[in-house]
Amino acid sequence: MSLELLPRLRVVLVETSHPGNIGAVARAMKTMGLARLALVEPKRFPCAEATAMAAGADDILYDATVHDTLDAALAGTAWVVGASARDRRRVDWPVLEPAPFASEALARAADVEVALVFGREHSGLSNDELDRCHALLRIPTSADYHSLNLAAAVQVAAWELREAALAGATRPDDAGRARESVAVADMEGFYAHLEQVLAEVGYLDRRSPRLLMRRLRRLFNRAQPDRPELNILRGILAATQRARRQG
Amino acid sequence: MSLELLPRLRVVLVETSHPGNIGAVARAMKTMGLARLALVEPKRFPCAEATAMAAGADDILYDATVHDTLDAALAGTAWVVGASARDRRRVDWPVLEPAPFASEALARAADVEVALVFGREHSGLSNDELDRCHALLRIPTSADYHSLNLAAAVQVAAWELREAALAGATRPDDAGRARESVAVADMEGFYAHLEQVLAEVGYLDRRSPRLLMRRLRRLFNRAQPDRPELNILRGILAATQRARRQG
Repeated sequence: MSLELLPRLRVVLVETSHPGNIGAVARAMKTMGLARLALVEPKRFPCAEATAMAAGADDILYDATVHDTLDAALAGTAWVVGASARDRRRVDWPVLEPAPFASEALARAADVEVALVFGREHSGLSNDELDRCHALLRIPTSADYHSLNLAAAVQVAAWELREAALAGATRPDDAGRARESVAVADMEGFYAHLEQVLAEVGYLDRRSPRLLMRRLRRLFNRAQPDRPELNILRGILAATQRARRQG
Repeated sequence: MSLELLPRLRVVLVETSHPGNIGAVARAMKTMGLARLALVEPKRFPCAEATAMAAGADDILYDATVHDTLDAALAGTAWVVGASARDRRRVDWPVLEPAPFASEALARAADVEVALVFGREHSGLSNDELDRCHALLRIPTSADYHSLNLAAAVQVAAWELREAALAGATRPDDAGRARESVAVADMEGFYAHLEQVLAEVGYLDRRSPRLLMRRLRRLFNRAQPDRPELNILRGILAATQRARRQG
């Protein structure tokens, strides 16, 4: 599974009413590395509103193909998935949620042409159109409100496709990666200095020193100071000592 | 199942330019079961365009709170995550991708108030605003094109939150869980006190105060002190002031 499969996937929009939605779909696709858009009888296209909403993903609009029928838009495909908001468990399509859909789509895209079809904003796909599909994609929503915007549905599907494509790759540990590490001995030097200063300012003797230092160790160990941060902390301790002695 | 945690999460939008985006965010939230929206200095709100784009999620707009400052919008929160498109690996926030973010947000939301902050459409969050955050959410995009629309970013985050809630996969975060939480306002009180003491011991003026305080904020936000720890830190600051004045 890999990223180069993403531009091969085809997104098909059937009879989209609002050209702005077509542009927003292009943008959602491009952010996630998808590229191929096919339009079946769009109400208005090309359209300035679509280009405006594409916001830099207009190359996907220029390359989009426009078709009279869904069959024409699906030419050459071997696995077709229809997005459906309705619960169609009673009918005989396999119903896939986004993550399993994405895995299967990528696995198949290595060998054959794959299309993901989205219906009209208000009425979705007709039964005739669903008959062209090998499976359905269902994006689970709140029970109270399942009015997912067209571009939002494409965004979720595209996001999961990208996640599936990246899944094999090793993800670097962002947190704490480029940070310069601090040796245990340096942390011990800091704790000794901290304990000394706490004694000097009269804070240590009013409590159980061992318990207090243990709590402070947990706090600073959790923060995992890097080298510049440890220098700042040591600098503050030294400044405190100077100020008290000069005071 | 922890779906009941979703309506407790707070989505904060900072200085949104296009009211349509606010409506689209409300719709994205409601489809996934989120409910609480806070707006900081929106350019236009309320606005017919927002209501139109909300498409039935207008109850979220009616209940949205509007604030003069980010701090006001974050009142009562104890874990704040800022969405950031830029690669901030060089700085010292934990950077979370959507799925780990969602797990941790839900785990923490069981105990404390959690907020997810999105910045301006074109310029995101300022450094000052990022300083209020305990972690960053980064949604990986195509290397060629990372112009994720505001509502699309909220949709991906909300989708992953719902997935995590449905999975019941609230992976408990040992560091953050049973610990008594500290409100953002209390952390701000600590930072003000810390800055005061650093000025008194003569450490602040030898450096760039803003840069220094930013570094210290990152360090202590990373550690996420609990209530007893914050009391210890405040006690050390007070003891330092007394020692210097008596010295």
